[in-house]
Amino acid sequence: MTPDDIAGFYAERSALNLDDYIELDFSFECAGDPREAAAHLCSEQSTAQWRRVGVDEDFRPRFAAKVLALEATPQPTGFSIAVECAATGPVHAVRVTIAHPHGNFGTKLPNLLSAVCGEGVFFSPGIPLIRLEDIRFPDCYLAAFQGPQFGVQGLREQLQAFERPIFFGVIKPNIGLPAAPFAELGYQSWIGGLDIAKDDEMLADVDWCPLAERAAALGDARRRAERETGVRKIYLANITDEVDRLVPLHDLAVEHGANALLVNAMPVGLSAVRMLRKHASVPLIAHFPFIAAFSRLAAYGIHSRVFTKLQRLAGFDVVIMPGFGPRMMTPEHEVLDCVRACLEPMGPIKPCLPVPGGSDSAATLEGVYRKVGSIDFGFVPGRGVFGHPMGPAAGAASIRQAWDAIASGIAVADYATTHPELAAALQAFGAKK
Amino acid sequence: MTPDDIAGFYAERSALNLDDYIELDFSFECAGDPREAAAHLCSEQSTAQWRRVGVDEDFRPRFAAKVLALEATPQPTGFSIAVECAATGPVHAVRVTIAHPHGNFGTKLPNLLSAVCGEGVFFSPGIPLIRLEDIRFPDCYLAAFQGPQFGVQGLREQLQAFERPIFFGVIKPNIGLPAAPFAELGYQSWIGGLDIAKDDEMLADVDWCPLAERAAALGDARRRAERETGVRKIYLANITDEVDRLVPLHDLAVEHGANALLVNAMPVGLSAVRMLRKHASVPLIAHFPFIAAFSRLAAYGIHSRVFTKLQRLAGFDVVIMPGFGPRMMTPEHEVLDCVRACLEPMGPIKPCLPVPGGSDSAATLEGVYRKVGSIDFGFVPGRGVFGHPMGPAAGAASIRQAWDAIASGIAVADYATTHPELAAALQAFGAKK
Repeated sequence: MTPDDIAGFYAERSALNLDDYIELDFSFECAGDPREAAAHLCSEQSTAQWRRVGVDEDFRPRFAAKVLALEATPQPTGFSIAVECAATGPVHAVRVTIAHPHGNFGTKLPNLLSAVCGEGVFFSPGIPLIRLEDIRFPDCYLAAFQGPQFGVQGLREQLQAFERPIFFGVIKPNIGLPAAPFAELGYQSWIGGLDIAKDDEMLADVDWCPLAERAAALGDARRRAERETGVRKIYLANITDEVDRLVPLHDLAVEHGANALLVNAMPVGLSAVRMLRKHASVPLIAHFPFIAAFSRLAAYGIHSRVFTKLQRLAGFDVVIMPGFGPRMMTPEHEVLDCVRACLEPMGPIKPCLPVPGGSDSAATLEGVYRKVGSIDFGFVPGRGVFGHPMGPAAGAASIRQAWDAIASGIAVADYATTHPELAAALQAFGAKK
Repeated sequence: MTPDDIAGFYAERSALNLDDYIELDFSFECAGDPREAAAHLCSEQSTAQWRRVGVDEDFRPRFAAKVLALEATPQPTGFSIAVECAATGPVHAVRVTIAHPHGNFGTKLPNLLSAVCGEGVFFSPGIPLIRLEDIRFPDCYLAAFQGPQFGVQGLREQLQAFERPIFFGVIKPNIGLPAAPFAELGYQSWIGGLDIAKDDEMLADVDWCPLAERAAALGDARRRAERETGVRKIYLANITDEVDRLVPLHDLAVEHGANALLVNAMPVGLSAVRMLRKHASVPLIAHFPFIAAFSRLAAYGIHSRVFTKLQRLAGFDVVIMPGFGPRMMTPEHEVLDCVRACLEPMGPIKPCLPVPGGSDSAATLEGVYRKVGSIDFGFVPGRGVFGHPMGPAAGAASIRQAWDAIASGIAVADYATTHPELAAALQAFGAKK
């Protein structure tokens, strides 16, 4: 690129109508001139050849992505991860903010993903290592999306559960049980105090435990638990399936007794979720398979908060995400970034409930609560409830007892001396996280 | 895990009915005992808690994923990439083959992805770095999928193009042109000798160049080129959009004159492609945005051949993929793995045409052909045709001239001495790759 070519991909914020742009933060490592690398990054993701041969025209003013800010730091030891790359020259670690004109693709999730996570981003000359760190949308762009139907407040109203976290549990054994004993486990967990008993993300509509049968059994068990406790409950059924079955399975599961639905967001695709959202009559909950494949490493891929935002935009009321502690291999600051991405203001889009999960139990509740710093989160043990040595009702009770202690300002360990379910949980799971 | 727990996740191949399993090759780095790490990997992706509390049962024989083979090599310098992780102990680099019972989830792409690229794989204790290297299916599993409708042979018949590669071109400028001048570029490229003029993967249905208008203009231009050359041509329209618009846009584009359709596979989702395949009346071509985000690094993520296989399975007739040369940041052996994944036997699933692309021109054709080692590939320049100094018709002609030279056993550079379009291409693009 000539200096003039490069300049066409830079702009001052004040020179742009920011309503026409989404903003992208990238970190990358490049070989050669960082300023030229950033111009290539803009060119490749927007108008890579901005004029016809022999025609005096320039599509860049309207159609080019433009660098708004750039910070480059020499990296004398070279690329942090060895990769195939044509680039030569001194290596820099760079952070850029880019304004990308959304009129190039419109308010469509697949086209948005193609622009911001596509060939232009991951095959830009000189940049073998790059991570999309964050994404921000103008309100006029967000207004084209429905976002969560119920959101945090709607879910709380459905459960009549206020001023505390929402207590989920993943029914275990997750794979292998037929509907009747599976429903019995759900019933026990509701009786013990869970708000929401859920299918594992791996348990969907299978011949050895068909969704219709399971939803009917869990629906009965849920209503029985509601009658006996006088408290509202949710059975969260996993309808993850081929996209042309999502709407039919929504109807089937809800008719039979599910009152919230789980979808594995990336495997199904965010656009399919947006389609389902238009039809949904119950809260939609996201699970996180596949996301780690592109979000774990600090130097490459896509930061998980980007996908948290997109899941919220697509219409999920709840986003389950990898939680705290080294077991889930996600730095604490990243979990908190994702929690914030659920709850922070997002134009007309409602907040969704963050559920940072992974190997939780009564022993981890206080830590999660302190880290999140508010009651607006979901807590989702699996074995911490269903592997409790006294059974699932006791497992669920141990969670509620832990919360009662925290809410009353009593040390959880002290409270356990008079609450055997909690004591058993601390003993069984206390050392695990 | 106890030694007995671990043993429940190992099996001899001869002890299994292999029709019940898909086979997965993983490479991973773990801290601690590799044999136990591999057992966890199986447990987490299948039946993580294989019995109820207080019930004498074991779901592992039917539902557990099982290690078939394991090879561990000490890695005295520790993990190759620093990551958050609970694991401690000596580090090993490990390769395993795992048999995963597909009855756990069925013949459904989202559930398959959840099983083999999900939480169980990427959050297995002791394994912060893992890559799914390959996947193999029994024929009975494949039989549930349609696969390509046309495949390599069907595409050749549509074009009446045999015994040579298929010549694609990405119309450029990719973003910014209205339909009429865009169609004129397509027309020029067909006249010059392209088989297929295509929309860029970033150009879909946008208000400044609506798909209906574009397909009509390109359809007219295509028919005109066919009349004038007496040769069949394809306009490949990009219908990437929200999944509930794929079928309507298929119909709209085909009615107006497109005779093949481009879909950005990952942004739309493989399952949505499978849905579209059921309805499609023309060849479906995959583009590769997003895939690099999880496939570039040797130590982490998902090998791109896994997604090549899945795109073929979902029903694509053609798979465009990052091609040869350091510009595309993909090692040569990986490109060849993806080419093979398109063409090798796959039970009842037809072969699809591999199109290894990226910064191609008349100057790179011979190298691509020699590396692929057969004529069964597509060649897809962008600027190599539409940025040719003599214009797109000359750009297309330069590609055909290069092929004529190769097919006649004449050195391309020699052939250029009597073919000015080829000479201009070699001069303009020759040093680029």
